[in-house]
Amino acid sequence: MIQARMEELGRKAKEAARYLMLASTDQKNQALQEMARALTAKSEEILSANQMDMEEGRRKGLSTTLLDRLMLSQKRIEEMAEGLLALAALPDPVGEVVEMHRRPNGLEVGKVRVPLGVVGIIYEARPNVTADAAGLCLKTGNAIILRGGSEAFNSNQAIARVLADAAMAAGIHEGAIQLVDTTDREAANILMRMNRYVDVLIPRGGAGLIQTVVNSATVPVIETGVGNCHTFVDQDADLDMALEIAINAKCQRPSVCNAMESLLVHEAVAEEFLPRLASAMQERQVELRGCERFQVIHPGIKAATESDWETEFLDFILAVKVVKDLDEAMEHINRYGTGHSEAIVTRSYERARRFMAGVDAAAVFVNASTRFTDGFQFGLGAEIGISTQKLHARGPMGLKELTSTKYIIYGNGQIRQ
Amino acid sequence: MIQARMEELGRKAKEAARYLMLASTDQKNQALQEMARALTAKSEEILSANQMDMEEGRRKGLSTTLLDRLMLSQKRIEEMAEGLLALAALPDPVGEVVEMHRRPNGLEVGKVRVPLGVVGIIYEARPNVTADAAGLCLKTGNAIILRGGSEAFNSNQAIARVLADAAMAAGIHEGAIQLVDTTDREAANILMRMNRYVDVLIPRGGAGLIQTVVNSATVPVIETGVGNCHTFVDQDADLDMALEIAINAKCQRPSVCNAMESLLVHEAVAEEFLPRLASAMQERQVELRGCERFQVIHPGIKAATESDWETEFLDFILAVKVVKDLDEAMEHINRYGTGHSEAIVTRSYERARRFMAGVDAAAVFVNASTRFTDGFQFGLGAEIGISTQKLHARGPMGLKELTSTKYIIYGNGQIRQ
Repeated sequence: MIQARMEELGRKAKEAARYLMLASTDQKNQALQEMARALTAKSEEILSANQMDMEEGRRKGLSTTLLDRLMLSQKRIEEMAEGLLALAALPDPVGEVVEMHRRPNGLEVGKVRVPLGVVGIIYEARPNVTADAAGLCLKTGNAIILRGGSEAFNSNQAIARVLADAAMAAGIHEGAIQLVDTTDREAANILMRMNRYVDVLIPRGGAGLIQTVVNSATVPVIETGVGNCHTFVDQDADLDMALEIAINAKCQRPSVCNAMESLLVHEAVAEEFLPRLASAMQERQVELRGCERFQVIHPGIKAATESDWETEFLDFILAVKVVKDLDEAMEHINRYGTGHSEAIVTRSYERARRFMAGVDAAAVFVNASTRFTDGFQFGLGAEIGISTQKLHARGPMGLKELTSTKYIIYGNGQIRQ
Repeated sequence: MIQARMEELGRKAKEAARYLMLASTDQKNQALQEMARALTAKSEEILSANQMDMEEGRRKGLSTTLLDRLMLSQKRIEEMAEGLLALAALPDPVGEVVEMHRRPNGLEVGKVRVPLGVVGIIYEARPNVTADAAGLCLKTGNAIILRGGSEAFNSNQAIARVLADAAMAAGIHEGAIQLVDTTDREAANILMRMNRYVDVLIPRGGAGLIQTVVNSATVPVIETGVGNCHTFVDQDADLDMALEIAINAKCQRPSVCNAMESLLVHEAVAEEFLPRLASAMQERQVELRGCERFQVIHPGIKAATESDWETEFLDFILAVKVVKDLDEAMEHINRYGTGHSEAIVTRSYERARRFMAGVDAAAVFVNASTRFTDGFQFGLGAEIGISTQKLHARGPMGLKELTSTKYIIYGNGQIRQ
């Protein structure tokens, strides 16, 4: 039964993708504008569906944080609509010929950017992902199959219905935007193995969700998000700058993947820097967990355990370690880091270059906060997630990362010898 | 026991990758030259290992084709060595800054090409893949874990040992080139799930092997190779050209993935073209399987079944169908094709463009043979396989496709507002 419904979804998405692949930029932009208008026009319908989810959530005892993520308001709906309009204004990556050259036999061989086809998104609480992801995929000519969290089921359904209707009214083929209309886990399991219909899966959510998708999917997955990020304060760092960067990386928004979780400091500046760090962090209610040397310098600091070096706290907690040099810092980062965002604060040309080359992560910073790892901050205009894998896309993924390429070859009768 | 050995392999590869990532182009090229020299110098050792595999193969009753693939000779070893020297002469993709721009806040955000890390290759019979894949990975700064077929176990071991020793002698870190030293299937299963150590898996072989890897792996996979390729002869095609292209695409080397398996012909030229096609193909011992209309035009042709449209024959067999127009041809291709290589023969500007845009495949040709889908023919200089998926790489994969990128960000104290 669920199998049949999912097959139907897949078949429709695949068919829609064939048409979307050929849609003009104007047509896609008109659909995005139509979708934005519809969200505003039908906000009451969406808000009342959200109300049902909120009540159910309260009844189930969801945490305040989760309830806040789940909650929609007129303002949040406006933001979704603005996001769609912003997408309409961005350049269309589809159709760009990224290379073209002539071979000795006269064949002209090139590569053109094309949609991926059908994108599956498996995500948790926030209902705004429904609109963001649908917009990003429509802009890039991909059909989307959305599988949201059960807490936001009614909200997601309402949003997806409004968007799908608006897209169809604008001439986009049916099936371009679809939401899995059951909360049964089996549906997600089927989606993860529908290689015949789905070209790529992007999980968006916590480490647990991402791990489940990576382990169960046979469809190619883009892994996103887990960030155990470090900042290394080098021996000749500008310590005022280092302090500002550390405070920003830890405190500006601790619940996100590009926030700093551990700080490493060169022993040559540890005695000068750490007391300043400690008082600045304690002032901001950050719990510090330090190595033995930090505890000697600043008695009363809680001891950091092995597991603290591995943990993405996503909270006002910071692990701190004194290291003897750049090499030890890099070893620590490459060992415990998740390959997300890593920063060095230094005045040394040589050590900045060594850190850049030797740290294996999606984004490596010199003298800036790790909080900048973000599609908008990097100038991509939009973001579907932050890839922490090395295939296809690494770091913030914008519109280009939602495309593939195909080889196009123009001949005049060439045959192979 | 096997688990522990595989862990050891993975750990060593990961460590080697950390050093390889930093190796200079000169150092990598010297290693490739050293590896080429060693293959020639130790050819006797390799040939005698191959002799063992050949004897075992004969004893087991392997087919002549398989035995031919398995067999090494002085000449084939020289070809492997030449392949490594050719790699040394190619430009190094690692370190290329593929983009860099300045943000309004003064941050300079760029992307640099870096190795993938650790590449796993799971492959079948041909022992030359051992040298080719090891060379490609070394050139691109990746550590490689090779898992060859059991028929070539001794040959692969000998080649891998010679290459690993030569690379180490040239100063490359131990663990850069490793072969799984057991034929136990469990080892392959473990390799496919070693996400902690392996960044990407590339299966090379028949459809069965590739399907197994796609279904079992949790490590990201690049799917390669299966090619159910078509040529469409349009209503105003130059029929002489169409015939030459069809003969080349079918007969020049039928056992490979870019060979044509089905030919589609517009009904307007079917009566003129098909008798010529039939006699040319029959002259070359190609078995034809036709639709009903072909059978009417040319009585005595065997009927094509539904399964013929789906089959990658890899043999002197060709399925032929008369279609009423370009749309029917494109529908047929998008339905039965495997997204590998598809060609149209036409004089029409409009229909060439429609075919290019509407056919969803790794390589789409106008007026040329599908046999050109190949890294060397496309000018990539080398090839690790032909991707038929849309993530990361599509079509022939050269050196660039064995790299990832990382964001590099240069600041002077920027923090996020």
